[in-house]
Amino acid sequence: MKIMIDAFGGDNSPEEVIAGTLLAIKEREDFTAVLVGDEDIIKEKLSGYTFDSSRVEIFDAKDVITCEEEPTVAVRRKPDSSIVKGIKELKENDEIKAFVSAGSTGAVLVAATLKLGRIEGISRPALCPALPTLSGGQVFLTDSGANADCKAINLVQFAVMAAVYAEESGIKDPKIALLSNGTEDEKGNALNHEAFPLLKGLKGINFIGNMEARDILSGKADIVVADGFSGNIALKSIEGAAKTVMTAVKGAITSSLRGKIGGLFVRKPLKGLKDTLDFNNKGGALFLGVNKPVLKAHGSSKRIAIRNTVLQAVSYAGFDLKDKIKNKLESTGASLLV
Amino acid sequence: MKIMIDAFGGDNSPEEVIAGTLLAIKEREDFTAVLVGDEDIIKEKLSGYTFDSSRVEIFDAKDVITCEEEPTVAVRRKPDSSIVKGIKELKENDEIKAFVSAGSTGAVLVAATLKLGRIEGISRPALCPALPTLSGGQVFLTDSGANADCKAINLVQFAVMAAVYAEESGIKDPKIALLSNGTEDEKGNALNHEAFPLLKGLKGINFIGNMEARDILSGKADIVVADGFSGNIALKSIEGAAKTVMTAVKGAITSSLRGKIGGLFVRKPLKGLKDTLDFNNKGGALFLGVNKPVLKAHGSSKRIAIRNTVLQAVSYAGFDLKDKIKNKLESTGASLLV
Repeated sequence: MKIMIDAFGGDNSPEEVIAGTLLAIKEREDFTAVLVGDEDIIKEKLSGYTFDSSRVEIFDAKDVITCEEEPTVAVRRKPDSSIVKGIKELKENDEIKAFVSAGSTGAVLVAATLKLGRIEGISRPALCPALPTLSGGQVFLTDSGANADCKAINLVQFAVMAAVYAEESGIKDPKIALLSNGTEDEKGNALNHEAFPLLKGLKGINFIGNMEARDILSGKADIVVADGFSGNIALKSIEGAAKTVMTAVKGAITSSLRGKIGGLFVRKPLKGLKDTLDFNNKGGALFLGVNKPVLKAHGSSKRIAIRNTVLQAVSYAGFDLKDKIKNKLESTGASLLV
Repeated sequence: MKIMIDAFGGDNSPEEVIAGTLLAIKEREDFTAVLVGDEDIIKEKLSGYTFDSSRVEIFDAKDVITCEEEPTVAVRRKPDSSIVKGIKELKENDEIKAFVSAGSTGAVLVAATLKLGRIEGISRPALCPALPTLSGGQVFLTDSGANADCKAINLVQFAVMAAVYAEESGIKDPKIALLSNGTEDEKGNALNHEAFPLLKGLKGINFIGNMEARDILSGKADIVVADGFSGNIALKSIEGAAKTVMTAVKGAITSSLRGKIGGLFVRKPLKGLKDTLDFNNKGGALFLGVNKPVLKAHGSSKRIAIRNTVLQAVSYAGFDLKDKIKNKLESTGASLLV
């Protein structure tokens, strides 16, 4: 099994992507890493490491799409970019089971949608990251940013896709909530009012109703469904607030001598907590709804985040998302709503 | 000057509302508190305290609107409720300068809009809380939940109203950002795409462009404008994440003996931080756009939160929001966009 990794995606590429990939191949022995990008540069960077060279391949792609470029234009104009060439190869090469990139989210999504194609019956693929919950578990938040404008049927499909993803991840009968501005059934905006009864009507879907954003991390739901705009606001608000609070905790502790002394004792548990909360470090967001797994790591990913996303991709290679999503669209009755 | 306070609003009413009101009159001497609600119960509760009785009045209202009731129906059916009667008196009595409630947000908004009326030229009033920023300042987030569905002109009016509010609060030439799913000008959903050029075109408004949710608390903007659905998601995501992290910090510290020892040293700074972050404790959200100041305290408010919201109301009594908003709609050119 091979995993394709965009060596030229993200703020810290190619160095950290290459370092993270090499960490991943040390961790698991059941895959080969294919680094896509400028062969000369990758070779040169690799020469600084000792590793099992039989497990690292290079797939040459001379061009790079930056985050500043308009995704649709860039994907069309740069067929030789690591993102476009990598995803095209993912489609055509059966040995390659997944694609990982920390590069331009827009370009990855556009290339994946255009080159890999959508799963039959899915009109809009969605980004689905996993966030850590208070109870030590995880919650899937989808769509977290692929579709700024959604229709009710899109939300229904996000719920069905995430249910399959959660089940494949080992969560039985996942609890699904709709992100809203209140918990009562009648809360929500016009889109929610349309989506709520459709979600409630799905067969074999454990829909638990509306959820306020303050409860996303509570563990009350395994999946929180949202349009890609609200989902993005929620994801980034949580990210920003968690970071702000951790910075403030550090500042508060080190603001006095007494606090600094205490800080020596609590440094270790707080560091552990910081790692737990730093969900971007834990892996990438799965792009749900395209024909093969595409994982988007955070743009600021360093080697640990890349390692974790590559390992995640290896696990997902065993998931049967495509057929199971198609079947679940049927069995839930979602396919009749289009 | 008198401030009307809903004695029967919020999870901890009337006890904590009365206690908080009495704390507020101790803090400032320039106002009289008018407690609206069942006179007999308020009298009985007040009898447990020593206070300057010349500064506390009771305005009898026998009925109460609960959070479970549908706001529009409740406001129509319960003219003798503390919310409806209190806001009606606010309108009719020149001596009363503001209304404070920790009760049903929906009922307060509906009653304020219907009974007080909107400021001339404003089509939708908006909730505007202040959140603490990393830099020690504050950021106004509006609309944080009054309008689940908005048009671009509503967002423009939120920006103009919040600019006046920020200026009255002492912030010169406030920086205004539009909440979006990216920082680039072309990011956003259909609503944002329509609102962005309108905001950019306003005269005398310091519009700094799109802002991601992760930067709300950064201090880069004084005002963040959003539709009431997204704004609510952002507000509650921040609230939930901050609470989750503080709980996790406590858990991490007390998880080991070593941590517990350190915890004794850092307890005080962390308690201080918790108070800083607990923005619901600092005061209420102003309901921007109605003819007199209405402040909504959090439903879970205890005496300190009530005290702070009442003191906030006293300060706002000196604000000239009504005329200044009318003028600013003209001077910015916002009035031409309707």
